Amino acid sequence: MKDLNELQTLIQEAVEQLNYPAQPPDLYEPISYILSIGGKRLRPALLLMACDIFGGDVNKAVKAALAIEVFHNFTLMHDDIMDKAPLRRGKATVHERWNQNVAILSGDAMMVEANKLMLQVDNGILRPVMDIFNDTATGVCEGQQFDMSFESRDRVSAAEYINMIRLKTAVLLGGALKIGALIGGANEKDAHLIYTFGEQLGIAFQLQDDVLDVYGDPDKFGKQVGGDIISNKKTYLLIKALELAQAGNAAELQGWLNNTAANNREKVAAVTAIYNTLGIREHARQAIRSYADKAFSALDEIDLPAIQKQYLQSFADSLMVRDY
Amino acid sequence: MKDLNELQTLIQEAVEQLNYPAQPPDLYEPISYILSIGGKRLRPALLLMACDIFGGDVNKAVKAALAIEVFHNFTLMHDDIMDKAPLRRGKATVHERWNQNVAILSGDAMMVEANKLMLQVDNGILRPVMDIFNDTATGVCEGQQFDMSFESRDRVSAAEYINMIRLKTAVLLGGALKIGALIGGANEKDAHLIYTFGEQLGIAFQLQDDVLDVYGDPDKFGKQVGGDIISNKKTYLLIKALELAQAGNAAELQGWLNNTAANNREKVAAVTAIYNTLGIREHARQAIRSYADKAFSALDEIDLPAIQKQYLQSFADSLMVRDY
Repeated sequence: MKDLNELQTLIQEAVEQLNYPAQPPDLYEPISYILSIGGKRLRPALLLMACDIFGGDVNKAVKAALAIEVFHNFTLMHDDIMDKAPLRRGKATVHERWNQNVAILSGDAMMVEANKLMLQVDNGILRPVMDIFNDTATGVCEGQQFDMSFESRDRVSAAEYINMIRLKTAVLLGGALKIGALIGGANEKDAHLIYTFGEQLGIAFQLQDDVLDVYGDPDKFGKQVGGDIISNKKTYLLIKALELAQAGNAAELQGWLNNTAANNREKVAAVTAIYNTLGIREHARQAIRSYADKAFSALDEIDLPAIQKQYLQSFADSLMVRDY
Repeated sequence: MKDLNELQTLIQEAVEQLNYPAQPPDLYEPISYILSIGGKRLRPALLLMACDIFGGDVNKAVKAALAIEVFHNFTLMHDDIMDKAPLRRGKATVHERWNQNVAILSGDAMMVEANKLMLQVDNGILRPVMDIFNDTATGVCEGQQFDMSFESRDRVSAAEYINMIRLKTAVLLGGALKIGALIGGANEKDAHLIYTFGEQLGIAFQLQDDVLDVYGDPDKFGKQVGGDIISNKKTYLLIKALELAQAGNAAELQGWLNNTAANNREKVAAVTAIYNTLGIREHARQAIRSYADKAFSALDEIDLPAIQKQYLQSFADSLMVRDY
């Protein structure tokens, strides 16, 4: 069995060997470009890992893993246009380096390339694999649309938020694992369990990200503390705080959200204090724990010896930090 | 056997029965909207016709035909963003009625929906059908990129132009026919021939469009005569004229292209006169005839009694006008 690092390296090498036609350059060069600027190749590596633990030959899963990576990067290319993001992984985004039309059209072509790669799975699992892939793709589009529409809404419920992060990021993790499992020969029940593992872990991880933005050690996580608070981002913490705040706290919180001229440091300190008063950190911890528990239960239930699940287990353990 | 009108009606009814989820509205409403504002449903109807003439049950081809129509409308949604078009079939385009981000993301979701529809073909032809569909989709993206890049180039060769229109519009016609033929039970040879018929006919039709813009009867074709000349559009006529013009004619033509303050009527008259001097109309007619001939030869070669090919034959005849 192969560990995550080894599989990430395998994917990295396979990505580097992807070749696109020379013509038209403005269609294909952006594809090679966005694929070359890195990323951890986590989703495709996990697809290979799922194949591996069910006894499959990971080399037979590489095309499907590349499909997941190409699809993921297509969504990044289009998301960057929508977010007007100038940088991705420290490099100019495609719409900045070329232009917006190029980024729209190259993204479209990437999605076709992702489909071509995924279609290379064996006939016996072609239909279920394509169904998972398309359902995942629909989920990612829905999640992105919910995310954009939440920005202009006053209130978003915690359930709506969780559903958004599930669609936007968690289903792709689940889908990648399920496809890998099917290629590896898993039965439908185990394939479903590994999907649930990925999906629930993905939700827990995103929620943890929200907590770390406020409570994380900036030296450890390399992020500006409170960035989400400064930008009024509707995170799980803010949504929960808006739900629980009453009278004075509610007015004060709303005041900070409306204050476009606020001093950033003061705003972060004040909003964090409100979160503390309302016990938001503990609420979030409980939510994270509950999703992580569902993920680990699903992993437990998979009908494989524990030793074969160890790398997935330790991947999940490494994702879930302790000190937040 | 069913004629084109009947098949167009069948598709129109099937399009009206397509149902998308209510949530998120900004993802799915634009899909229903663009599909509702019409179009002749020619591509999907031809897919059904191809199925029909090979003895297939057209009802079994409706999902694949819808896939072609949904895919085609996805490309229109994204093309309209790239072209900054305010109107489509007389109605506001999606990026105008909603916004650009909605048009990008709804288009992406439409492409996934097109894939889901196409995947509903029988197992026995699933792989070849998906291969044709994806190759077609790649071709359409390449064609659109060539078209955009030609705008900023000084010179484009006639061969490059023909390849661009082949990719941008003709391969989808060919692909639709080929998929329909496979669903109808055609063998690989006949399926390839009907692809060639659609592809070559599509090229001939696009070239004819270029000629009609200058030489067509405005009452018959409902277009402003010379619109392409006014906008300096790199049509087959202009490309051929730039290729053939020498000395005086070349300088005069270039002068009109560079003259941004030209009177439209004068410009159309002068450029048309140059085309006439160079015999451009006859060059174009010969090219059209040569592509149409290839189309009709391919149709002839298909191993079916002539009576079964009559509707395709008369569709092609009706596309090719005589008086230009």
